[in-house]
Amino acid sequence: MYGDIKLFSGTACPDLAADIARYLGVPLGGRDIVKFPNENIFVRLHSSVRGQDVYVIQTTSAPVSDNLLELLITIQTLKLDSAARITAVVPYLAYARSDKKDQPRVPITARLVADMIEVAGADRYITLDLHAGQIQGFFSIPGDVLTAFHILSAYFVEKRPELINPVIVTADLGFAKKGRNFAARLGTGMAFIEKRRSANDAKAQAMTVIGDVRDRDVIIVDDEVDTGGSVAQAVQIVKEHGARDVYLSFVHPVFSHPAVERLRVLPIREIVTTDSVPIPPAKRLPNLRVLSVSSILGEVIRRAHEGRSVGEMFNE
Amino acid sequence: MYGDIKLFSGTACPDLAADIARYLGVPLGGRDIVKFPNENIFVRLHSSVRGQDVYVIQTTSAPVSDNLLELLITIQTLKLDSAARITAVVPYLAYARSDKKDQPRVPITARLVADMIEVAGADRYITLDLHAGQIQGFFSIPGDVLTAFHILSAYFVEKRPELINPVIVTADLGFAKKGRNFAARLGTGMAFIEKRRSANDAKAQAMTVIGDVRDRDVIIVDDEVDTGGSVAQAVQIVKEHGARDVYLSFVHPVFSHPAVERLRVLPIREIVTTDSVPIPPAKRLPNLRVLSVSSILGEVIRRAHEGRSVGEMFNE
Amino acid sequence: MYGDIKLFSGTACPDLAADIARYLGVPLGGRDIVKFPNENIFVRLHSSVRGQDVYVIQTTSAPVSDNLLELLITIQTLKLDSAARITAVVPYLAYARSDKKDQPRVPITARLVADMIEVAGADRYITLDLHAGQIQGFFSIPGDVLTAFHILSAYFVEKRPELINPVIVTADLGFAKKGRNFAARLGTGMAFIEKRRSANDAKAQAMTVIGDVRDRDVIIVDDEVDTGGSVAQAVQIVKEHGARDVYLSFVHPVFSHPAVERLRVLPIREIVTTDSVPIPPAKRLPNLRVLSVSSILGEVIRRAHEGRSVGEMFNE
Amino acid sequence: MYGDIKLFSGTACPDLAADIARYLGVPLGGRDIVKFPNENIFVRLHSSVRGQDVYVIQTTSAPVSDNLLELLITIQTLKLDSAARITAVVPYLAYARSDKKDQPRVPITARLVADMIEVAGADRYITLDLHAGQIQGFFSIPGDVLTAFHILSAYFVEKRPELINPVIVTADLGFAKKGRNFAARLGTGMAFIEKRRSANDAKAQAMTVIGDVRDRDVIIVDDEVDTGGSVAQAVQIVKEHGARDVYLSFVHPVFSHPAVERLRVLPIREIVTTDSVPIPPAKRLPNLRVLSVSSILGEVIRRAHEGRSVGEMFNE
Amino acid sequence: MYGDIKLFSGTACPDLAADIARYLGVPLGGRDIVKFPNENIFVRLHSSVRGQDVYVIQTTSAPVSDNLLELLITIQTLKLDSAARITAVVPYLAYARSDKKDQPRVPITARLVADMIEVAGADRYITLDLHAGQIQGFFSIPGDVLTAFHILSAYFVEKRPELINPVIVTADLGFAKKGRNFAARLGTGMAFIEKRRSANDAKAQAMTVIGDVRDRDVIIVDDEVDTGGSVAQAVQIVKEHGARDVYLSFVHPVFSHPAVERLRVLPIREIVTTDSVPIPPAKRLPNLRVLSVSSILGEVIRRAHEGRSVGEMFNE
Amino acid sequence: MYGDIKLFSGTACPDLAADIARYLGVPLGGRDIVKFPNENIFVRLHSSVRGQDVYVIQTTSAPVSDNLLELLITIQTLKLDSAARITAVVPYLAYARSDKKDQPRVPITARLVADMIEVAGADRYITLDLHAGQIQGFFSIPGDVLTAFHILSAYFVEKRPELINPVIVTADLGFAKKGRNFAARLGTGMAFIEKRRSANDAKAQAMTVIGDVRDRDVIIVDDEVDTGGSVAQAVQIVKEHGARDVYLSFVHPVFSHPAVERLRVLPIREIVTTDSVPIPPAKRLPNLRVLSVSSILGEVIRRAHEGRSVGEMFNE
Repeated sequence: MYGDIKLFSGTACPDLAADIARYLGVPLGGRDIVKFPNENIFVRLHSSVRGQDVYVIQTTSAPVSDNLLELLITIQTLKLDSAARITAVVPYLAYARSDKKDQPRVPITARLVADMIEVAGADRYITLDLHAGQIQGFFSIPGDVLTAFHILSAYFVEKRPELINPVIVTADLGFAKKGRNFAARLGTGMAFIEKRRSANDAKAQAMTVIGDVRDRDVIIVDDEVDTGGSVAQAVQIVKEHGARDVYLSFVHPVFSHPAVERLRVLPIREIVTTDSVPIPPAKRLPNLRVLSVSSILGEVIRRAHEGRSVGEMFNE
Repeated sequence: MYGDIKLFSGTACPDLAADIARYLGVPLGGRDIVKFPNENIFVRLHSSVRGQDVYVIQTTSAPVSDNLLELLITIQTLKLDSAARITAVVPYLAYARSDKKDQPRVPITARLVADMIEVAGADRYITLDLHAGQIQGFFSIPGDVLTAFHILSAYFVEKRPELINPVIVTADLGFAKKGRNFAARLGTGMAFIEKRRSANDAKAQAMTVIGDVRDRDVIIVDDEVDTGGSVAQAVQIVKEHGARDVYLSFVHPVFSHPAVERLRVLPIREIVTTDSVPIPPAKRLPNLRVLSVSSILGEVIRRAHEGRSVGEMFNE
Repeated sequence: MYGDIKLFSGTACPDLAADIARYLGVPLGGRDIVKFPNENIFVRLHSSVRGQDVYVIQTTSAPVSDNLLELLITIQTLKLDSAARITAVVPYLAYARSDKKDQPRVPITARLVADMIEVAGADRYITLDLHAGQIQGFFSIPGDVLTAFHILSAYFVEKRPELINPVIVTADLGFAKKGRNFAARLGTGMAFIEKRRSANDAKAQAMTVIGDVRDRDVIIVDDEVDTGGSVAQAVQIVKEHGARDVYLSFVHPVFSHPAVERLRVLPIREIVTTDSVPIPPAKRLPNLRVLSVSSILGEVIRRAHEGRSVGEMFNE
Repeated sequence: MYGDIKLFSGTACPDLAADIARYLGVPLGGRDIVKFPNENIFVRLHSSVRGQDVYVIQTTSAPVSDNLLELLITIQTLKLDSAARITAVVPYLAYARSDKKDQPRVPITARLVADMIEVAGADRYITLDLHAGQIQGFFSIPGDVLTAFHILSAYFVEKRPELINPVIVTADLGFAKKGRNFAARLGTGMAFIEKRRSANDAKAQAMTVIGDVRDRDVIIVDDEVDTGGSVAQAVQIVKEHGARDVYLSFVHPVFSHPAVERLRVLPIREIVTTDSVPIPPAKRLPNLRVLSVSSILGEVIRRAHEGRSVGEMFNE
Repeated sequence: MYGDIKLFSGTACPDLAADIARYLGVPLGGRDIVKFPNENIFVRLHSSVRGQDVYVIQTTSAPVSDNLLELLITIQTLKLDSAARITAVVPYLAYARSDKKDQPRVPITARLVADMIEVAGADRYITLDLHAGQIQGFFSIPGDVLTAFHILSAYFVEKRPELINPVIVTADLGFAKKGRNFAARLGTGMAFIEKRRSANDAKAQAMTVIGDVRDRDVIIVDDEVDTGGSVAQAVQIVKEHGARDVYLSFVHPVFSHPAVERLRVLPIREIVTTDSVPIPPAKRLPNLRVLSVSSILGEVIRRAHEGRSVGEMFNE
Repeated sequence: MYGDIKLFSGTACPDLAADIARYLGVPLGGRDIVKFPNENIFVRLHSSVRGQDVYVIQTTSAPVSDNLLELLITIQTLKLDSAARITAVVPYLAYARSDKKDQPRVPITARLVADMIEVAGADRYITLDLHAGQIQGFFSIPGDVLTAFHILSAYFVEKRPELINPVIVTADLGFAKKGRNFAARLGTGMAFIEKRRSANDAKAQAMTVIGDVRDRDVIIVDDEVDTGGSVAQAVQIVKEHGARDVYLSFVHPVFSHPAVERLRVLPIREIVTTDSVPIPPAKRLPNLRVLSVSSILGEVIRRAHEGRSVGEMFNE
């Protein structure tokens, strides 16, 4: 209906893009992406996309500004070449935490990002596990917001027999509801970590565990690990409260400095995440397990192209 | 800068509008709002708003569709009469819970509402305690999203001396983070209620209290009470877990059927809410306390008109 | 070109929608439309419309606000599910009489309705006999504005032999031109009713018949009957001027209170209308004849889907 | 509020523009408008309009395409020079009769004109007696649509004593309703001319007078006279039906060829119109009376600038 | 993908349109284009374009305003008839020289033209040799901007053997870079004509030839010839500097008055141009050679319709 | 008219921003601009800009992507805080050389940049010496595009007495016309450097000097120096052709690697540029002279704020 399927990849996640291409049996389109000495990014397609159904795969992890602009410039290039339909496939969407004005005089940068993707010329978008589901409403174009939690929870369901009385813990109360869903899939209970600023000292934080973790295996779940600060606190406090083994699971391995240094020294049995953000070899800790999102992204691209239901993928 | 201040009120919350007008010392503008026999809503302004700075006060509680359309038609009328600036003042924004696609093939109606308010001609909006702060990002026009939780928590801070070892409880994990802020203001601890669908019976729900409520006064907080189902469950379970007195506090008294019938028979010491939604006499339970939002809405209108900071109102 | 044809119906005119579906041999798509206790309307599609050519059939008669919002929410749901093309099929478009500012400081609600249909995500619209043809220009999307007058006049052409020296009368001078076309199809003459406000008493109206009705069968034609006030006056005055049998014909049976009560007692031989607005059994007077628009709506949907001329349907 | 008032005039109606400027006591802004040898129109303002409230006076009579483009180019020039607010003052709006699709596959050019005025950068518009009031709804910017019929009817009210049993006649049934208003102001009756295509010969037209004109002075009213064909027929037929003196009154003297030739030889006592379209000396028939719209346009500009009600001008 | 290909032609370049139609083997669609006595332009399509891929061929040479409006009205007509995709094919785009503000308070009319083409409803555009390539960026819709210089230079490459030591000369420094490309294709050198206003007399211009033309055949190249003033000066000065034969080559034969009179008397061996603008017989000088652009326009339409690369046409 | 003037600066050109603030006697507004460990840029204003006339000063030199996003995020922050008017002051606009598709399948990134500035919420823009003046037409918002060539040429006019028979040379034919203006101001002649790819070897370039430079002082002028490659070639070839002293003058010292290394070793007497791009100490060559644009930017901001003519600044 929208011509043939065409895949293009930016420079941010070449391995994931290649895996998606392999899943689909469609080659990545040839293109030059150059950063000139004056830092202007330049894109040139090797062949025409006129009248085709094009998917641009580009995650927006570091270098964030460059990756974001590269995405936008590529979209505009495709539009000017008269693509029939352009879908931005963004496994990890930057700025998703800047999604509301929780203090005066700050931006809602996630809305700006959505606006820029639209003004560049995208007709649709595909992404994974937005920090808040409401970010879907920032776009006026339709999109598919998928979750990789099925992949992560499936991993632990399989591992379930070897876990001792496990409990799901969320390090951030804002994630409590999604943690509940994770717990439901494993059939386990939950506990929460509550952080609160000290009345006397704004920088000090009091932490409490609400719920029971003693002598239980703990799985801390979150949507992403950025600098690893919250996670480090969470591991520490559940250990202080008598937790057995601690597992950590999250979708987006953002791993900003000093996340890897922190994780390296924490008593975590296993860290389970995805390849929505590429992890350079230097950051691949021995206890890190990376599950690939290439098949769900590939499958949703196929279904979007063929005009078939995406919801069915998740049996819903 | 945008001419004189003008206030108009729809028919949804006349008392609140009158209180805001009184706060500002500005009369409500004369207008006819008629629902014709064919149910078409008609608006006519009694005098010109050409070049003025106009605020339309209209909450969007029941009758929701009529109130929403009345708001939109009034905004368009003001625009066509060449108002310099139009601000929609919507104490309670309908459809805020339809803010994301949490299942396939459903709408994000809150975005549609935002789009309709913009297409009708509003330049700005003012509202209170959105179900999710992210809904701010659904608008491309600027707005002031205020909170009435300061008013509610202030009430309990004053009452604090007579409370026995109080604890804040949220009936919905999605509200956990805002509950934490409430607790921080009172200097109390927290507990959560976790609801989970039964594996065998999709309609059955298992409920757990995570955290400690025994022999403590419990304040259940939420953003709104709709049919009162969750609240009723919450009161019941904290009582089962040994809670002392139970208080209930929330911003928006939506009170859909059968909320009032449920609340009437629950062992709640006091229900503390606001007038963001008008409460008809028949729904005014003896233990209901309504705190007015007229002064914060009036003050923000004044500051918006004068080009002064709104953030300062909240000492932030 | 835009995928398969899909039909959806709102809750406003289920019988007409079913008749259209039958005409096309295409089933109505499964969907839930729920009005929650808080009056928020919710839509859920049973299966995906990704890449399909979708038609939403929803008239906007009473309850007008609910029906209009239901239409808009359904359109947005279809858009977010990535339909290839969405056509709003609205047999009767509400607010069409609010189509100009004929006094200061009033809305042009029909334009607002057009804007809302567009902002919700419709790509096209189909409707019948707009109060003013100019309303087509309120939309920036293309549409098919059909007329059911062919059906009504064909009925009278067939009945022509039994009519005595018939004359077409319009109750409203604004309808004079369309009345002329009706008369031309029947090959009859015309007369007009002129209403004028009394100089002394704004509420009193003087009425005159311009043209000749004595001893002739009179067919009063109009686009819609709302409360029936004008029609009642018209019947009365043509009778006073010596008319023989009086017939009444119009496209949209809006029938607001007290239309049916008025029509019931008037000396009208036959009332001929369509099913663009559903008529509940209680309003089906014995002398009421309802001609169905399902086949012209069905045919235009088929032609729109297949990319064939709609104009040819009317031999133009 | 929008800076100082500035007036600019295109080249289409310099006398009217000068009269408006005189009424307002504001000079017309200096500007060059050049049509280059390649027919490209060029505009240059002599001084800056940065931050000012600018009104561009340009009627869109012949040469229509040039006058329209000149208007659009002037608006864009003002916008690019950072005017605070731009109002297009268009006494006669071209293409107003192309306001609906009354046959398949034709344009709605009046909507296109509205869109072009908006895309060029106008914030508001002012115009006189649109062919259909609904054209207001073609604009998404606010505007003031005034009527000059008050001026025309006032003229005849004054002349009333010398008229013999006058009757208002409309040459086009589409104008019946406005004719009624004219008649109401004079306190006279009405008659209509009905034209109908012959069944045998599409080019032939049968004409009838509906209503009584015998031995009465007839005032034929319309919104504009284009080629004068309808008017010529109307004069002829009312004369055939025994009318006494015939007057002709209309707002817009479009006077396309051969209007003046036709009017010259018709037995019309007096032709009363306005200067919304400039009438060159060669077209100024001896029985032509031109009433100026400069004061109502000037007054509405003043009120728009000062943010005062325009509706009050018409005692409504 | 966008239905069948359909060609329509305005009235500006009927011969070129017919040649393109012949190249494509597709007939021109039937349509009426009428200029009414009131100069309003009217368009009616003879058959439906519903769901088709439509190309409107209309150059915008004199009468510029009429041709431009005719283009816009035709586009809107096609859009309202629900064409699937509309491409404006404009061999010569008017107002391309009004592409920047090189003095204060002037328009950028080329941007206005682009905006009008978009607001009328075009989805794409095709044009030839814009005065500045940047005008592509004035459109937010995609387009194909082709060059006819390949055709012109190929002509001279073939003629090369008979030319004596040829040199390319540009009459305008703004065209220096494109002149260089022309020279490169011929493998010749270049010279420039520098015009400078006299310090004493703003109207007087000093002219210099920079580079060597003595005893060489000179080919003066430019994008268009308007009134021929610059060209006349250029021919004169290169002759004064000892040039042998002078050739003149340019894409767009705008030929405003008095271009032809000027060219007629100049010592030019041959004038080589294209049919992007129709040249009436009276302007066809004996030394004028017109190369047709119909095949490149036809080919790009074919490729655009079939979704094939246009860039390949130029081996790039 | 738009409230008080407020200045904000991004982090790209703090010195220039401070100089502009000093010129205007208005302090720079307090704001935090933070780049988080995850590279997300965050902006927070220290005080409200509600209803104010705000100017954001941010050049978009390296780091280009960060500086551009910082500009956009700041604009959105100001918009969401309800600024009355937001002007982006961008001394050097990145991506201006990506202003047309001069080969197939490439972007027009300058248009994308313009679109992003608009979608972020800017109402106006101010910039200096765009690579092509046409880029003004990429914006649909008004702007002031100033030139610093007046400053550069004034410098050489003053130095004129000590120059020996000077000649202006442009290194790029695309800059020929602007070079002519520079020459006119100095009252000197011109010469051009023509570069052409070798027919045999695409990478080799033949260079020619067109015009006379022998024994003359040469001033090479351009809009910017990026890597310095063209300039280095130009200096070398004019020296080979016998030039005396060589001067180099351009507005934007982009100075990408290895510009400074190249310039350091070239026989250039003096390099004259501006501070539109900040030059770090390490790049400040001994023969570099930097003239400040702060006063022209400051003055245009003042005039824009006060609604006074900017054109007058340049005596035009």
